[in-house]
Amino acid sequence: MNSLINMEWVGDAERGYLRLLDQTKLPLEQVYLDCLTVEDVWHAIKRLSIRGAPAIGIAASYATVIGAREGRFDESVDYLASSRPTAVNLFWALDRMKRVGSCRASLLLEEAKRVHTEDAQMCRRIGEFGYTLLESVFNGVGERSPALLTHCNAGALATGGIGTATAPMYLARERGLSFRVYADETRPLLQGSRLTAFELRAVGMDVVLICDNMAGQVMREGRIDAVITGADRIAANGDAANKIGTYGLAVLARYHGIPMYIAAPSSTFDLSIAGGEAIPIEQRSAEEIVEGFGRRTAPDPIDTYSPAFDVTPADLITAIITERGVIQPVNEENVRRVVGGG
Amino acid sequence: MNSLINMEWVGDAERGYLRLLDQTKLPLEQVYLDCLTVEDVWHAIKRLSIRGAPAIGIAASYATVIGAREGRFDESVDYLASSRPTAVNLFWALDRMKRVGSCRASLLLEEAKRVHTEDAQMCRRIGEFGYTLLESVFNGVGERSPALLTHCNAGALATGGIGTATAPMYLARERGLSFRVYADETRPLLQGSRLTAFELRAVGMDVVLICDNMAGQVMREGRIDAVITGADRIAANGDAANKIGTYGLAVLARYHGIPMYIAAPSSTFDLSIAGGEAIPIEQRSAEEIVEGFGRRTAPDPIDTYSPAFDVTPADLITAIITERGVIQPVNEENVRRVVGGG
Repeated sequence: MNSLINMEWVGDAERGYLRLLDQTKLPLEQVYLDCLTVEDVWHAIKRLSIRGAPAIGIAASYATVIGAREGRFDESVDYLASSRPTAVNLFWALDRMKRVGSCRASLLLEEAKRVHTEDAQMCRRIGEFGYTLLESVFNGVGERSPALLTHCNAGALATGGIGTATAPMYLARERGLSFRVYADETRPLLQGSRLTAFELRAVGMDVVLICDNMAGQVMREGRIDAVITGADRIAANGDAANKIGTYGLAVLARYHGIPMYIAAPSSTFDLSIAGGEAIPIEQRSAEEIVEGFGRRTAPDPIDTYSPAFDVTPADLITAIITERGVIQPVNEENVRRVVGGG
Repeated sequence: MNSLINMEWVGDAERGYLRLLDQTKLPLEQVYLDCLTVEDVWHAIKRLSIRGAPAIGIAASYATVIGAREGRFDESVDYLASSRPTAVNLFWALDRMKRVGSCRASLLLEEAKRVHTEDAQMCRRIGEFGYTLLESVFNGVGERSPALLTHCNAGALATGGIGTATAPMYLARERGLSFRVYADETRPLLQGSRLTAFELRAVGMDVVLICDNMAGQVMREGRIDAVITGADRIAANGDAANKIGTYGLAVLARYHGIPMYIAAPSSTFDLSIAGGEAIPIEQRSAEEIVEGFGRRTAPDPIDTYSPAFDVTPADLITAIITERGVIQPVNEENVRRVVGGG
């Protein structure tokens, strides 16, 4: 297996269905959900059985095929849009399905498969550009086995392919490079522990789980040759918002002279935002910190502060890897040159 | 209440007993254990009902009083020494009890109370020196309320007094300064969440719990005016070993121009060690990371890397606060001048 399969359409347009890996059961059970109705897919998105912006868009595209053959394509599009109302990729994908301009299930299935395949191709292109960067980092390491550090999950589970931050890792493994991946557990929701460690281990990669606060020591011991993460939103000057903790890693990487890479599709860039200070930072609830694991681990009541994201300024990012090329050094001119072409 | 009471001797030498706050029940329940026998104290230390190097030594000192009145002082000393065999303060305190040179319970109780009181006085002296540093930091903040960041628990719960890293906070509060404390939860064992947040809240301090990986963002937002932590062992050149994550905080503090203080008694210094590279780093078990919250949160099996401590190099420490004075700048000459006097 080259990477974990998070979803696939089983059968033809008339009788087929969407099979999803139920990510709520990870990391302990690998259970597949067969979604036979539009409602099944809606609930799967809603309860996070499938998550990750690209993956949600693909799943919803497939669901419209089921809606169309039941004679309620338009209704199903509106209904699916309500499953995760802040997911931009969801609206983009549903809009694409509408632009097919037909309610024939077979034509819609072709389009849904194109959405899926194009996402997989986008991941591979990010992987190719990233691989070239990693190859030169790995070549400089000498005798010992090189190692990467990643944070949160920007992996195969979140996309229609081999992920974004993980894409260079999957390609390096395909091509026989030997390396280790340190995965930050990523508090409070532990996406690194539950998802990234799971998916990399599932294909036999050498993955080592650490707590977020160990990254500095692991770097100091000379164990890390590059940091690579995804991004949720990137401003025109290259400032990148990503899961909380990414900024701290970037500061640590700079202090230790380790390259810091961010891998993200061009759709992540919001060129209407000049710099990272204009990116709003969502605040999360106290429960995720104090009751995240089935029992309370803090006094009750207690005040918490829980930003979901942080912004890594462009000057701490060695390069941004997109499917259109590598932005390096990271500045507005290079951002516009690589991804500004519409 | 000025600070939480973690233990007290109740009654006289002949019929008295040791009352302990059961820290295994924190943060949700405040339950006191009455230890009537030497065995009760041994088990309380063993199962971490009382923890923190100074606190363990004090509890064991009181327990020898019970041993003496049962006519088995020497036996109780040896037995108590087996409760936490790596705790240096435990041996130091038991040795002090032996040097009383008498098995009269009343004389031993006086000595145990001296061990306790001296530790409390040591904490207050650290607090006084630290208060002076904090006062000038707070004065520079201007209109808004100042804030500190701490990591793990070097608090009243771990000592016979107002803690080490927390001592300047308790004094600042006594003297009416208004400030906030951000407490890192401190993965994997969550001492910041379970203990520090608990004890500061118990006296009504303004404490805000964050995940370890949020410290960088909180500093970037300008919310932190000083970082203050304890230490487990400090080398002759001032390199300081402390709970994993302290080093990362020190790098972040330097990057943001925030002072980084370490508060520790002179007994923490090991002048036979030239620099931090010679301090051994204990590795902890995978279970603490993957099953730390009552249910498994990572794939099974998974490799982990879990250093219990890291070493912050002297050049990242603004000052070390001891009961004998402040070491600033942190270098071997100043270390020997302040704590080298035997």
